[in-house]
Amino acid sequence: MEIQIMFRTTLTAAVALATAIAGPALANDELREYANELFEPIPLSTPDLDGNMVTRQRVDLGAMLFFDPRMSRSGLFSCQSCHNVGTGGVDGLETSIGHGWQAGPRNSPTVFNAVFNIAQFWDGRAADLAEQAVGPVQAGVEMNNTPERVIDTLNSMQAYVDAFAEAFPGEDDPVTFDNFALAIEAFEATLTTPNSRFDQFLMGADTLDEQELAGLEAFIDQGCAACHAGVNMGGQDYYPFGLVERPGADVLPEGDRGRFAVTETAMDDYVFRAAPLRNIELTAPYFHSGVVWELEEAVAVMGVAQLGADLSEQEISDIAAFLRTLTGEIPEVVHPVLPPRTADTPLPEPM
Amino acid sequence: MEIQIMFRTTLTAAVALATAIAGPALANDELREYANELFEPIPLSTPDLDGNMVTRQRVDLGAMLFFDPRMSRSGLFSCQSCHNVGTGGVDGLETSIGHGWQAGPRNSPTVFNAVFNIAQFWDGRAADLAEQAVGPVQAGVEMNNTPERVIDTLNSMQAYVDAFAEAFPGEDDPVTFDNFALAIEAFEATLTTPNSRFDQFLMGADTLDEQELAGLEAFIDQGCAACHAGVNMGGQDYYPFGLVERPGADVLPEGDRGRFAVTETAMDDYVFRAAPLRNIELTAPYFHSGVVWELEEAVAVMGVAQLGADLSEQEISDIAAFLRTLTGEIPEVVHPVLPPRTADTPLPEPM
Repeated sequence: MEIQIMFRTTLTAAVALATAIAGPALANDELREYANELFEPIPLSTPDLDGNMVTRQRVDLGAMLFFDPRMSRSGLFSCQSCHNVGTGGVDGLETSIGHGWQAGPRNSPTVFNAVFNIAQFWDGRAADLAEQAVGPVQAGVEMNNTPERVIDTLNSMQAYVDAFAEAFPGEDDPVTFDNFALAIEAFEATLTTPNSRFDQFLMGADTLDEQELAGLEAFIDQGCAACHAGVNMGGQDYYPFGLVERPGADVLPEGDRGRFAVTETAMDDYVFRAAPLRNIELTAPYFHSGVVWELEEAVAVMGVAQLGADLSEQEISDIAAFLRTLTGEIPEVVHPVLPPRTADTPLPEPM
Repeated sequence: MEIQIMFRTTLTAAVALATAIAGPALANDELREYANELFEPIPLSTPDLDGNMVTRQRVDLGAMLFFDPRMSRSGLFSCQSCHNVGTGGVDGLETSIGHGWQAGPRNSPTVFNAVFNIAQFWDGRAADLAEQAVGPVQAGVEMNNTPERVIDTLNSMQAYVDAFAEAFPGEDDPVTFDNFALAIEAFEATLTTPNSRFDQFLMGADTLDEQELAGLEAFIDQGCAACHAGVNMGGQDYYPFGLVERPGADVLPEGDRGRFAVTETAMDDYVFRAAPLRNIELTAPYFHSGVVWELEEAVAVMGVAQLGADLSEQEISDIAAFLRTLTGEIPEVVHPVLPPRTADTPLPEPM
């Protein structure tokens, strides 16, 4: 209920804004002013976390866990498999492939800037990145592991035991599944992509060309910014996919009713978290179904489904050009060196 | 034929040496002297390659290719999947899992120091790392791709086209499958692990404790060094597995006749390249079959199969302790940032 109201309020504000700026193209500084009311640059430094300390020890441990395929039952998958730091924080597949070559139900969202989302997963079923991290580890179609087996694996290697003790000082029993999740969250909080050309524009630099400026104006004018706003250009609220016109079953498969599965309330039928648009040029394919590979096509689909707008080719091209200015600086990640297994480490079970 | 003669010569020399040093434990410096006749430290700098230039441009391009899952048909596997730089250059599986969750026929050998091997693969069927690199990319049970599809993928992304031009300057058509292999070889040549405690010992430092020294002496004395010598402590010659006594079918599956498949000569039946022992504590499970998980057990199996020696528990423990001194400095690898796909990039085909 609250969400629906929030959504309507935001939309009304955006429509008012769109009306205000209709007409001839705005001057750079006016557009910048409007944009700064809707959007926010990604900070250059790692954000603080509620209930978690982003210490160097915790981040380094989190990196080890993020990259360690022994966190999966098969020994084949790590967080990195589906949230590849080299490819925009995603796997570039329609839906992810997991244990036993099973296809997952949804496209894997990017880990980059995920710390700025209001909640995690396409349906927001995890409150934060720590809660998210424990999902795929246990999911039968993903890493297919159990908390007990993860803890046994970690306890079998002294370097992990030591790293947990350093990352969670003063705790009697630091090697826990909760701390596993907190360490991964701390690492993932460092995976932000500041200083995109758009962020530089927001801060006052003239980093966008004419088409990109026209795209930004259309993005606001057409109402895209009603849902895709804030620091992450989305990821803040939940909206029905097909608000105006429901897309075809290829784009919106009937069996996946989105947030309905979380809240079991009718108004959440086919409701999803608005996708964050940061680095969108790196994160194809698009939508929770992952069936749209071209950014221009995704913009067109959104126009019809969410705004009832049959965007012109020029507008689509302009908006896509603007969206490509959202690509930020990719974090430099040194591949962690993982401790060797011991006689106590559970054997991989791929079959 | 030449190989067999080389083997006998080496073995004879080793046996002579073993006889010479039988009796009371050697003084540190005498043992070091013997050891320096058989082994060689890994150089601190990246080795030169025949027919390939290890330029920064070529290494950086090679790192991109090594880590890019789009080099596989499914979009799921890269070289890194089976030769993980975080886990000793291997995947830690009995045999690797590839396209469609197929189990490969053999345990994946480490990429670390592979540049020092006489040839690549367990049966030496690739002359060098460049020739090796094109194998798994095309193997149906591994990455299941084709050279044409790899080239189409690379040509679809301008950053790759530019990187090939910089790595292969002056070439009219630098984006070729041969250059793909050369770039990967150049990157892999940087994946060496110098400065192990044993290498420091070879250079004159007293870095080994009493048990490790006893293990080194036993390693030479018992004849292990006949096959596991040189800079890579192995990887230089081919030997029948089961030279003295053929191991059980679990360790030596009857269907895999090793180098026989390459040369089709009877004397190569069940012949394999002697495993390089560098970083052996990181590269379990052991043997081409990957069924032995404990280093001590692997030493015992080798004693019986290759030397006809029923090593005592103490000897096995000493040799294993020595082998753990072969762990060197793991190269620091920054995960490369890969270019985004374009409309021309072939779609992943996981199914």
